[in-house]
Amino acid sequence: MNDETRARTAIERCRTLAGFSQDLGSTRRMFLSPPMRDCHREITSWLKPLGAEVRIDAAGNLRGFYAADRAVAPRLLIGSHLDTVPNAGAFDGILGVVLGVALLEALRGKRLPFGIEVIGFSEEEGQRFGTPFIGSRALVGRLDEELLNRKDDRGICVRQAIQDFGLDPREIPAAALSGDTLGYVEFHIEQGPVLDGLERPLGVVEAIAGQSRLEFVFVGSVNHAGTTPMNRRQDAIAAAAEWITAVEREAQQTDGLLATIGSVTAKPGAANVIAGETRLTLDVRHGSDEVRNRAAETLVRLAEAIAGRRGMSVAHTTRLTQRSVAMDPKLMNQIEEAIRLSGCEPYKMVSGAGHDAMILAERVPASMIFLRTPHGISHDPAESVRVEDVAKAIAAGSHLFELLAQSPPIQRRTQLA
Amino acid sequence: MNDETRARTAIERCRTLAGFSQDLGSTRRMFLSPPMRDCHREITSWLKPLGAEVRIDAAGNLRGFYAADRAVAPRLLIGSHLDTVPNAGAFDGILGVVLGVALLEALRGKRLPFGIEVIGFSEEEGQRFGTPFIGSRALVGRLDEELLNRKDDRGICVRQAIQDFGLDPREIPAAALSGDTLGYVEFHIEQGPVLDGLERPLGVVEAIAGQSRLEFVFVGSVNHAGTTPMNRRQDAIAAAAEWITAVEREAQQTDGLLATIGSVTAKPGAANVIAGETRLTLDVRHGSDEVRNRAAETLVRLAEAIAGRRGMSVAHTTRLTQRSVAMDPKLMNQIEEAIRLSGCEPYKMVSGAGHDAMILAERVPASMIFLRTPHGISHDPAESVRVEDVAKAIAAGSHLFELLAQSPPIQRRTQLA
Repeated sequence: MNDETRARTAIERCRTLAGFSQDLGSTRRMFLSPPMRDCHREITSWLKPLGAEVRIDAAGNLRGFYAADRAVAPRLLIGSHLDTVPNAGAFDGILGVVLGVALLEALRGKRLPFGIEVIGFSEEEGQRFGTPFIGSRALVGRLDEELLNRKDDRGICVRQAIQDFGLDPREIPAAALSGDTLGYVEFHIEQGPVLDGLERPLGVVEAIAGQSRLEFVFVGSVNHAGTTPMNRRQDAIAAAAEWITAVEREAQQTDGLLATIGSVTAKPGAANVIAGETRLTLDVRHGSDEVRNRAAETLVRLAEAIAGRRGMSVAHTTRLTQRSVAMDPKLMNQIEEAIRLSGCEPYKMVSGAGHDAMILAERVPASMIFLRTPHGISHDPAESVRVEDVAKAIAAGSHLFELLAQSPPIQRRTQLA
Repeated sequence: MNDETRARTAIERCRTLAGFSQDLGSTRRMFLSPPMRDCHREITSWLKPLGAEVRIDAAGNLRGFYAADRAVAPRLLIGSHLDTVPNAGAFDGILGVVLGVALLEALRGKRLPFGIEVIGFSEEEGQRFGTPFIGSRALVGRLDEELLNRKDDRGICVRQAIQDFGLDPREIPAAALSGDTLGYVEFHIEQGPVLDGLERPLGVVEAIAGQSRLEFVFVGSVNHAGTTPMNRRQDAIAAAAEWITAVEREAQQTDGLLATIGSVTAKPGAANVIAGETRLTLDVRHGSDEVRNRAAETLVRLAEAIAGRRGMSVAHTTRLTQRSVAMDPKLMNQIEEAIRLSGCEPYKMVSGAGHDAMILAERVPASMIFLRTPHGISHDPAESVRVEDVAKAIAAGSHLFELLAQSPPIQRRTQLA
């Protein structure tokens, strides 16, 4: 079986898992929902024949451990998440788990100087409880009381959901990373158009962008659209529009900066009334926290200048500030080398979206390999991957195993063991 | 009693009528609502002692007729509307009726070569049935079957509302203008800041602006705010914002043009998602239909150009096209002369808002006198008028009576009679 055949199998398996859904006719699989059990059963049926031990930890993560060639050895984690958004595609998250299985298969029974743990995280999307990364938080000891008490739409808390699935919340500490973890590698679709635009199959994530989320309210004067001359208006929609165009311009002029106004509402919102109030959200992301913070400040000042010039006011509230997370440079170098050995030129990039790797990076060397996402479409049934890209990902993963097996820390650790 | 005393009385009467409300603590008086009856009773109590005959026509309009000095004579109509918006001020509409009463009082029993009919229209704001001008439409024969069948929020149709008030819809034809109508003069607060800015007490309306109302939908692509580079976006909010600023600029550069985007909504409207659709309303007004139509076309083309440059689409629908209505030039000249005789310099202006005069103008010479509106505030409890401006309005109205009495058509009609 070659990598292309393995790739076809991987894609087929992703499609199979997409069939395990809470909804008829589309894929939705939230944290510890009934179809998650089918998912676990199916993946277990692929892992067990390879000689992996499979368990579901108390946070609902699937953990398949493929032992090293010796009793005492470090372990490499490979995985991603098994939950989905509503009306999801088949590959976001899932592909990273399925590729972990494929990489074990590609070893054809060979054991390495380190163990490999394939992880399928129970929750990354934040759909059920409004908080993402429940699965990976358990590994870094951050699935705490507050999060366990958080409730879903039906009033069921995380703790209850765990119990209802037949798991024991008291055992959550046992889900934590063991001290022998070598690192975490996550394959994931890019979910953006960059690699597709560059015609590159694979990317290496160097950082997960920091994020600032703010809310703005422009306050003008409600007035009659038919009796108020243009030069006598304090139009909250016109002021907000001027700012939106300024935000877009600022982001276009700053390398790597993403600034998005995703929501805008105006009051009173009647066709013949000049708006007195406009509310907007601003999402700012950049790999550098400094650039992001400076940009957020600039955009606030721009809003104030525009409102001031129009005799209006603007207020803002910061809703979220999330620092950027750097991926491990050494692991990144090894991944780049592995990608090259697979015959591709790796493309270093910042991930604008959050991923489990961001959480794991708090404790262990972590990095991600992005797969080209045709047309950048994700979180949609039209989400897809190319067979040849998945084959390259499997080849790169296999090369990464070889490089890690030969790398000094492993050699040293192994010697120590 | 001088004009200033009469002005104080008029303001006091407006405040009295504002107390007749459907709501406790604020003024709201819709078409044939119970407090309208109190309003009719009160105004009748002012008109009757002056020797006027008062009736409520089948459309609920109050009609107070002060006969001429001879049996057969034309009649001048003076009035405005008695209904209000919710949380209304005391003067919008009402003042025009109360000033009609004040002008009869100022005659101190003197009869003129023409009769004077003081009219309090039952409906102008369009609050109850979504259609404005129900009262004045009856005078021009346009309170038709379709309108009579229109229902309010509670499922009561116009016809039923008329019956419930104790009136007979079959008598609506009798509410129509008689052939001997000399013209219609409406005093009304400006509802805008123009006269206030110019420090002028009174304005003469030369036209009621035409109006185009359109809806626009910009369609882009929903995408992840964190993974889609700025140059790969089809952001429906950013495109709409660029257009809104262009609309504002266009209106600012075109004399007399008003263009308003009063409503904007975007989908999906999440902070971390690039919007795929933005819906907006556009309200365009100008005294000249040609300028307005050209402007509407320009703004549509601008939207298309902006969408096109961004690889997006935009669709528009015209929701309303209302031609501008010119006021009668001869009556305007007489009003201007009367205002000058009252000691003010009249300011000729276009009304951006619609008024009953617009409906009456279909059949008889009509014009309006605007009173300065402090800070341009209307449709709000803070709506106000200055005593001295109301006194000037009464003086101007009295001079207008004199001018009309001396004008050739009256002289000729009187001779013919």
